[in-house]
Amino acid sequence: MQPIRLGLVGYGKIAQDQHVPAIHANPAFQLVAVATQGQPCPGVENFRSLGELLENAPQVDAIAFCTPPQGRFALVQQALAAGKHVLVEKPPCATLGEAMALVEQVREQGVSGLFAWHSRYAPGIEAACDWLASRTLHSVQIDWKEDVRKWHPGQAWIWQPGGLGVFDPGINALSIVTHLLALPLFVESAELRVPDNCQSPIAASIKMADARHLDIRAEFDFDHGHDELWSIEIRCAEGVLRLDNGGALLSIDGVRQAVSEEGEYAAVYRHFQQLIADKTSDMDLQPLRLVADSFFVGSRTAVEPFYD
Amino acid sequence: MQPIRLGLVGYGKIAQDQHVPAIHANPAFQLVAVATQGQPCPGVENFRSLGELLENAPQVDAIAFCTPPQGRFALVQQALAAGKHVLVEKPPCATLGEAMALVEQVREQGVSGLFAWHSRYAPGIEAACDWLASRTLHSVQIDWKEDVRKWHPGQAWIWQPGGLGVFDPGINALSIVTHLLALPLFVESAELRVPDNCQSPIAASIKMADARHLDIRAEFDFDHGHDELWSIEIRCAEGVLRLDNGGALLSIDGVRQAVSEEGEYAAVYRHFQQLIADKTSDMDLQPLRLVADSFFVGSRTAVEPFYD
Repeated sequence: MQPIRLGLVGYGKIAQDQHVPAIHANPAFQLVAVATQGQPCPGVENFRSLGELLENAPQVDAIAFCTPPQGRFALVQQALAAGKHVLVEKPPCATLGEAMALVEQVREQGVSGLFAWHSRYAPGIEAACDWLASRTLHSVQIDWKEDVRKWHPGQAWIWQPGGLGVFDPGINALSIVTHLLALPLFVESAELRVPDNCQSPIAASIKMADARHLDIRAEFDFDHGHDELWSIEIRCAEGVLRLDNGGALLSIDGVRQAVSEEGEYAAVYRHFQQLIADKTSDMDLQPLRLVADSFFVGSRTAVEPFYD
Repeated sequence: MQPIRLGLVGYGKIAQDQHVPAIHANPAFQLVAVATQGQPCPGVENFRSLGELLENAPQVDAIAFCTPPQGRFALVQQALAAGKHVLVEKPPCATLGEAMALVEQVREQGVSGLFAWHSRYAPGIEAACDWLASRTLHSVQIDWKEDVRKWHPGQAWIWQPGGLGVFDPGINALSIVTHLLALPLFVESAELRVPDNCQSPIAASIKMADARHLDIRAEFDFDHGHDELWSIEIRCAEGVLRLDNGGALLSIDGVRQAVSEEGEYAAVYRHFQQLIADKTSDMDLQPLRLVADSFFVGSRTAVEPFYD
């Protein structure tokens, strides 16, 4: 079978560290072109813009988007208008309206779209889904805490309007929990703690529920000290499931479970390949919608200024 | 033809002033029951809750919801589970997630749903739509300014988390503009001015665009002095369309145009009747989505405290 000829837009850290290695490791894909304004990607044709790429490499079947979410909407629209399948890094867009419009455009074009919530492919997630499928859930506690100075040094955009603040890592937790739970989640209340000199929260407490009133709480903290805590604990009638290290580790009642050995981005691209083969899409709005609703109904408390 | 037997939930000011007179004036509807915890509605059976109403008046075909948006979600779900058509006052729900879930549930139940954006039925709107249909649009300017002390005296909820602040009237303008324009709108940026002692904005400037990059700007002000300004001006290649008084007045190049003589709520219920007859729904999320996205990407500036 002929490989899926792939173009990639935005050759920054996430593309270099994750996307390109995952693409090269998967024989179903062939990376043929990159659009970047920074350093070129070795071994493929490089262009200065998506427009140039589409014009000079019209044979590409699909485009992966690794540019920042601000400004990505117009680019993805351009690729869709050219009839390409699209893989869009998290968070997919700057606003919910843009993300909803992409879902609509993908449907109209009849191509495949993937909003790549990569944390859903962490090693422990699939086994966690399997275990939860037949259990009676009582409550969910998310703790997603890290040091922003370690993980986002000097990234001022994260504090600006439209920057997600602590929801930038937090949306990964939300993408996992919405994947693990069968029913949609709703924000009931949120407390956002915003540094006096910033626009986005450095910490947040969120109370959510699903349609059956499952008690779901999240604590996000961006000022947590050196050792990160990325855990999700789900209490069930039959025992306690716990994911640690962002979903890499799974335990049931404190006993470590076997997990997948596939990397997150290897699984992301395997999923994208399957969507294209099946002529279908996976563009879940829910994690972004939960963030937008947290900003919408959340109370804000000013906390001390943040200096990087 | 047998009238549509209607139940109404929440017999407060909007129900008394608008809904009940509009229902009584329309022979297609028969108001049979009201659920309210305040004063009873004369001439019909009154119940203390929707649950009691559904149990004791199972013949109702449809339910109109006039309670505040906080807490409305569970009520509308209850009515839908009982197979009733639903009419939901603006804004439909406390969060976008809740509103999206109602759209889904209405589809699953196969009943008719209406998110009643009443300002879309203001007298000048239909003629404005007709005139705009064949025009080339250049820009849209919304000015929605009023005195909160006159229109919402003592309503503390409007300033609390989840209260819309100046977006409570502003969402009416957004409901009109999204109705007038053919393409979806996207929030590009927003500036929210929030009193030091409140959680919700007292004023806002919003920059929006549609997919063709139409320049759309809105100025919302809740501290405007006694005379309100509720206007929308659309500049076209062929002239300037202007709606005043919240859509009651229409002019083209300064010349007053003939408008509908039907009241807003008369038109709302006529539309609901048609939806039920056609076995279809009209549950537009767009106005609420634009508000949520404005809160999501908006920058916040603290302004002087607000005292009622």
